[in-house]
Amino acid sequence: MPSARYDVLGIGNAIVDVIARAEEDFLLKQAMRKGTMALIDEARAEAIYEAMGSAVEVSGGSAANTIVGLSSLGGRGAFVGKVKDDVLGRAFSHDIRAAGVAFGTPPAAAGPSTGRCYVLVTPDGERTMNTYLGAAQDLHPADIDADAVAASAIIYLEGYLWDPKNAKDAFLKAAKIAHEAERKVALSLSDAFCVDRWRDEFLQLMRSRTVDLIFANEGELQSLYQTADFNTAVKALRADIDVAVVTRSEKGCLVIGPDGTEAVPAFPVERVVDTTGAGDLFAAGFLSGLARGADDRICGRLGAMAAAEVIQHLGARPEGSLKDMARDNGLLD
Amino acid sequence: MPSARYDVLGIGNAIVDVIARAEEDFLLKQAMRKGTMALIDEARAEAIYEAMGSAVEVSGGSAANTIVGLSSLGGRGAFVGKVKDDVLGRAFSHDIRAAGVAFGTPPAAAGPSTGRCYVLVTPDGERTMNTYLGAAQDLHPADIDADAVAASAIIYLEGYLWDPKNAKDAFLKAAKIAHEAERKVALSLSDAFCVDRWRDEFLQLMRSRTVDLIFANEGELQSLYQTADFNTAVKALRADIDVAVVTRSEKGCLVIGPDGTEAVPAFPVERVVDTTGAGDLFAAGFLSGLARGADDRICGRLGAMAAAEVIQHLGARPEGSLKDMARDNGLLD
Repeated sequence: MPSARYDVLGIGNAIVDVIARAEEDFLLKQAMRKGTMALIDEARAEAIYEAMGSAVEVSGGSAANTIVGLSSLGGRGAFVGKVKDDVLGRAFSHDIRAAGVAFGTPPAAAGPSTGRCYVLVTPDGERTMNTYLGAAQDLHPADIDADAVAASAIIYLEGYLWDPKNAKDAFLKAAKIAHEAERKVALSLSDAFCVDRWRDEFLQLMRSRTVDLIFANEGELQSLYQTADFNTAVKALRADIDVAVVTRSEKGCLVIGPDGTEAVPAFPVERVVDTTGAGDLFAAGFLSGLARGADDRICGRLGAMAAAEVIQHLGARPEGSLKDMARDNGLLD
Repeated sequence: MPSARYDVLGIGNAIVDVIARAEEDFLLKQAMRKGTMALIDEARAEAIYEAMGSAVEVSGGSAANTIVGLSSLGGRGAFVGKVKDDVLGRAFSHDIRAAGVAFGTPPAAAGPSTGRCYVLVTPDGERTMNTYLGAAQDLHPADIDADAVAASAIIYLEGYLWDPKNAKDAFLKAAKIAHEAERKVALSLSDAFCVDRWRDEFLQLMRSRTVDLIFANEGELQSLYQTADFNTAVKALRADIDVAVVTRSEKGCLVIGPDGTEAVPAFPVERVVDTTGAGDLFAAGFLSGLARGADDRICGRLGAMAAAEVIQHLGARPEGSLKDMARDNGLLD
């Protein structure tokens, strides 16, 4: 296996977040389920935008956030995702490249506009997301650069991508190339409702060893195994996958691997401003540790640290240097 | 004089801010003068954007920020400014209306795209601005709604607007209508380099009583009277205008009026994150007090409070309700 050009290559929906604060009753009126992600069409996107408050536009996308976080931690990242060649698409491309990430997926010249996620942040810091996939859903197997995938130590796929048929095919093509090059394939389960839509296929991806490592939070895990009993779900998980990382908000995370289970505490947080990106940045920290061969505990701590940074401000990408923060916390030399 | 429909109608450049963090040496390499605003053309805008880091897009514009701040304080605000009918123009229009501001200026269907301000925030929280005016420079006298101006207790003009000939004419038309309706006209001097370009014309606007009230910071005042001696400048100011409000950052402000001078202290600030909008929000607070007939001290305190809120986060518009903040501080019933 040749040495890797990238530590992690992420494949996901290329999305610009449109973030506004909202009261709880706004969610009720709009029939939104708090804390989850709903896929919406363009008409609904327009209606939500019309009704919501003053917004901030900032590049997002789950796997994209993860790779930007990895880059902020000093890792070498690449990203594959589809934008249109429009104002938001150019902003997305600028921002991810400015963060030091290799991003070469050609933008769509025609078709739907660049995808947007309308993020409503309630006073408790919880975020409720409504995603218009737009151009992002047109990611095709042809967009997978086989050389880049084979040259990445880990490829990282977001569960959110597992919706359009062509994106699934792109996902499977990348996983196959990665395994042929003896690389690792990681998957984030993304969202409890996403798991609910694709439970059997996600389990199949795990059981067939199409993926080697999964990231899940408690809600996603409960949805995957349709049980409210955490221990039952963890036991099932152990049989289905080599390594699983289960995040539990302020309770920290569990790293479940072939050598046992490591419980890693969360990071102290002064004030939760906006939880958008918590899971994405956890994965960024964990993967940056993994790429450097750190042990489960350090990987978990790096994940917890990156998640703690991102939930203390608006938006799903780090504001400061996570590398400096990791050094200050003794997690990096 | 009939009762007013709006407390303040602002006229200014309709701009979307593109905000990124930058190190000091980035400013040096780009030959930017820290803390100031430079007008740039589209080619330079592209070059700066290419070189700068990951950005956040958020509606801005000096007078627009002021009117949004006024609205957040419970005031009735209206805004006049020019965008193009494009993605950024629609975002600007959405955001200002979502903040409760009346905004009816028709967007340009053709011509330059919506104006952008590239804001570089250095680690000390200072902001350096580069503005591509775009559609904003095409504000014409025909865009001034005479009824709305005459129905506003105060009209507020940003000095930044005093650049294109047609915008100056729009500015003068609005001031004339306001005075005919026995309304007050306020002007912000905006920026020391802006004052340097238009010193004689600004003094003429003051001495001819085309404006009744000005807002200036120390740098702008020094530029206006070409003196480093604060007391000399204040004395000159007293002769040239009815009321002047001079902001002095952490030293608070001076309100210089016909009945004497009131020094008002600044508001406590935990951590300066981004000074963008400090002057705009000071004016918002001050004008909201003035519109309610508050005394100089309360007006100054409201200004100081609104400025303190906006410099503690990224972006030039308030994140929380300034009305609640004013109530918590005993500045509003």
